[in-house]
Amino acid sequence: MAAVSPLAPERFPELPPIGGVSLASAHCGIRYKERTDLMLAVVAPGSAVAGVFTRSLTPGAPIDWCRRALRRGRARAVVVNSGNANVFTGQRGRDAVTATVAAAAKVFDCDDREVFVSSTGVIGEPLDAAKIVAALPATAAAARPDAWAEAALAITTTDTFPKGATRRVELGNRSVTINGIAKGSGMIAPDMGTMLAYIFTDANIAVTALQPMLAAGNERSFNSITVDGDTSTSDTLLLVATGKAGNKRITRADDPALRAFRRALDEVLIDLAQQIVRDGEGAEKFVTIEVSGAASPAAARRVGLAIGNSPLVKTAIAAGDANWGRIVMAVGKAGEKADRDRLSIAVGGVQIAEKGGPVPGYDEGPVARHMSGRDIRLAVDLGIGRGRWTVWTCDLTHRYIDINGSYRS
Amino acid sequence: MAAVSPLAPERFPELPPIGGVSLASAHCGIRYKERTDLMLAVVAPGSAVAGVFTRSLTPGAPIDWCRRALRRGRARAVVVNSGNANVFTGQRGRDAVTATVAAAAKVFDCDDREVFVSSTGVIGEPLDAAKIVAALPATAAAARPDAWAEAALAITTTDTFPKGATRRVELGNRSVTINGIAKGSGMIAPDMGTMLAYIFTDANIAVTALQPMLAAGNERSFNSITVDGDTSTSDTLLLVATGKAGNKRITRADDPALRAFRRALDEVLIDLAQQIVRDGEGAEKFVTIEVSGAASPAAARRVGLAIGNSPLVKTAIAAGDANWGRIVMAVGKAGEKADRDRLSIAVGGVQIAEKGGPVPGYDEGPVARHMSGRDIRLAVDLGIGRGRWTVWTCDLTHRYIDINGSYRS
Repeated sequence: MAAVSPLAPERFPELPPIGGVSLASAHCGIRYKERTDLMLAVVAPGSAVAGVFTRSLTPGAPIDWCRRALRRGRARAVVVNSGNANVFTGQRGRDAVTATVAAAAKVFDCDDREVFVSSTGVIGEPLDAAKIVAALPATAAAARPDAWAEAALAITTTDTFPKGATRRVELGNRSVTINGIAKGSGMIAPDMGTMLAYIFTDANIAVTALQPMLAAGNERSFNSITVDGDTSTSDTLLLVATGKAGNKRITRADDPALRAFRRALDEVLIDLAQQIVRDGEGAEKFVTIEVSGAASPAAARRVGLAIGNSPLVKTAIAAGDANWGRIVMAVGKAGEKADRDRLSIAVGGVQIAEKGGPVPGYDEGPVARHMSGRDIRLAVDLGIGRGRWTVWTCDLTHRYIDINGSYRS
Repeated sequence: MAAVSPLAPERFPELPPIGGVSLASAHCGIRYKERTDLMLAVVAPGSAVAGVFTRSLTPGAPIDWCRRALRRGRARAVVVNSGNANVFTGQRGRDAVTATVAAAAKVFDCDDREVFVSSTGVIGEPLDAAKIVAALPATAAAARPDAWAEAALAITTTDTFPKGATRRVELGNRSVTINGIAKGSGMIAPDMGTMLAYIFTDANIAVTALQPMLAAGNERSFNSITVDGDTSTSDTLLLVATGKAGNKRITRADDPALRAFRRALDEVLIDLAQQIVRDGEGAEKFVTIEVSGAASPAAARRVGLAIGNSPLVKTAIAAGDANWGRIVMAVGKAGEKADRDRLSIAVGGVQIAEKGGPVPGYDEGPVARHMSGRDIRLAVDLGIGRGRWTVWTCDLTHRYIDINGSYRS
């Protein structure tokens, strides 16, 4: 793993055990020499599962499988390998998924469709599933309820730190826990999907409530981040509910009892999404872009992502330059309703442009100090309507080019 | 001007004089200290003019003016300054355009709407039009028919070489000439517009034929290039026809007599568009992306631009890595119909991936040699339909970040 991102959290958070979930990692030698590359999550029989996947039109074989398996709505195991994405690998790729799923179903004596698989790493190289199949029984035997950190580590690729988040919340007079782990650093511009993220809870919630809740939370978290505008072929977000907390089963997403749970779930999703941005390839600054005054929330998000994806905005931020002219450019290219003469822009809380021009004599000192820091806040008001959205991104630095010019070699 | 791009043509081409066109440049001190920053093209009274402009929703004040003036379809002068884009400058920006236009109209004793203006450079700083107004009379007096190279130089910003192209063609038994100059290096992702490009011809063609011909030519040239996916607020393409060649006036774009002229015009447009890519900020490789087998030509272009805009594809090319997995990713995110199992990819003429997987045992030697060169050819066949399009781009290198982290300082 490369030098840890300067934006990384101080440490991996303490993720408590969750009833009905145990984890393990292993080294099965897919690509990396001296680190783990296989993650296994075993969940209690009967666990409900919801999922959101990449909208890429060239998805990997594991995505095709997960979409099919998800129709059943039950999970028993999640098997993830790093080092090879099993994408654009044709029939061999499909065979690799089939072999992995069958082997896991045998180990856990469950239906094939209760096994979810993900692969992340290089695209286009055949995945040797035999290595995973061979490692599965011993890995399953080693699964423990407290192996969150090592599970998070096993799924990383160009990440510089493992990513986890946890919340505890009351649900129907029971205390329930939500734990999540995620990976991601480059090829991050999720589009109705995410990078790899796995959320587990002991809450007793049926798929009928789980899926809409996850899809909604995904919009304001993973679908609101970008590192480089490149959408992965493998984006996967799974939420597994074991029901072991023993609360009265909840079957509807609009059940008022879910309010606190939903908020906690959203927090976990946003926390993990932000960690992915904080580990953006080459990132040295974390950027929050708040767009308001748009024609709709969706318009605000598109404008925010246009700003967050602009290489000119991102290189200016890397250089500590409050170059709001480039923000204007990005707003203009977003294709959403905008009026140059109503637009206003604030950097670090200081209004620097409004009504079609720079604010005369604004105080440049605090803006320059803000831009030299790690946490950059841009606020753009379009002055058109009431739509607002927040997008997170990072700057574009020389290290992005270093990392991506040498990833395969 | 920075070190000349390694992809630059050997020299600025010999642009012959065109009846009814004279040019001049001047230093009026808008931003640069020791170079020209004002370009003036004077054209014969009654010249017809066609134009295409940025689709940005935050265009500069000069764009607003040109759109208005174009309705009249007549040109007498084109005034272009570099160093300041006059974008997001509010009422002061509009006033600067009005002052410049009025001064030029007075010098040439013409209607305001026969004066076209462009500005390129930093966004958001007030443009001091008084400097341009003061310089105009002497600049006009100095205009000559052979000043193409200095005109092309005066409009550059981060460009490392001036850009020009010329063709001569028969039209109605007369020999007519088409000359074009252009500028552009970063913020290049024209969307129904271009960077700054000015085409002049002595052909006698009415606006009714000129405008549709220019709009069509623009699609396959400037609208098919990208450097960084950032669409400028100032993109402008003008075509002026003085009629001095004396051919019988042509009034319809579908006039068969125009066939050779149209082909020559397209060549000039593509030549200039490619020169802009060859001067892409930090570019070290020129990349041609041929997409075929798409559902439609428009779909092929969108897929081509998704590949050409992908920072992961562009950094791989910079590193000489034939990373076709990233091309698959970019095809997948383009949002156009694609089928992983029908996709095929060739690099430098060597088929390396087909039918959902890598070509077994393809010869890596020629591919590696091709990738180490300056001219990279990618061919992607989607295997869906008959739509094809060619897109040009460049690689993404450290110098892009250097240039854009320091442009304002």
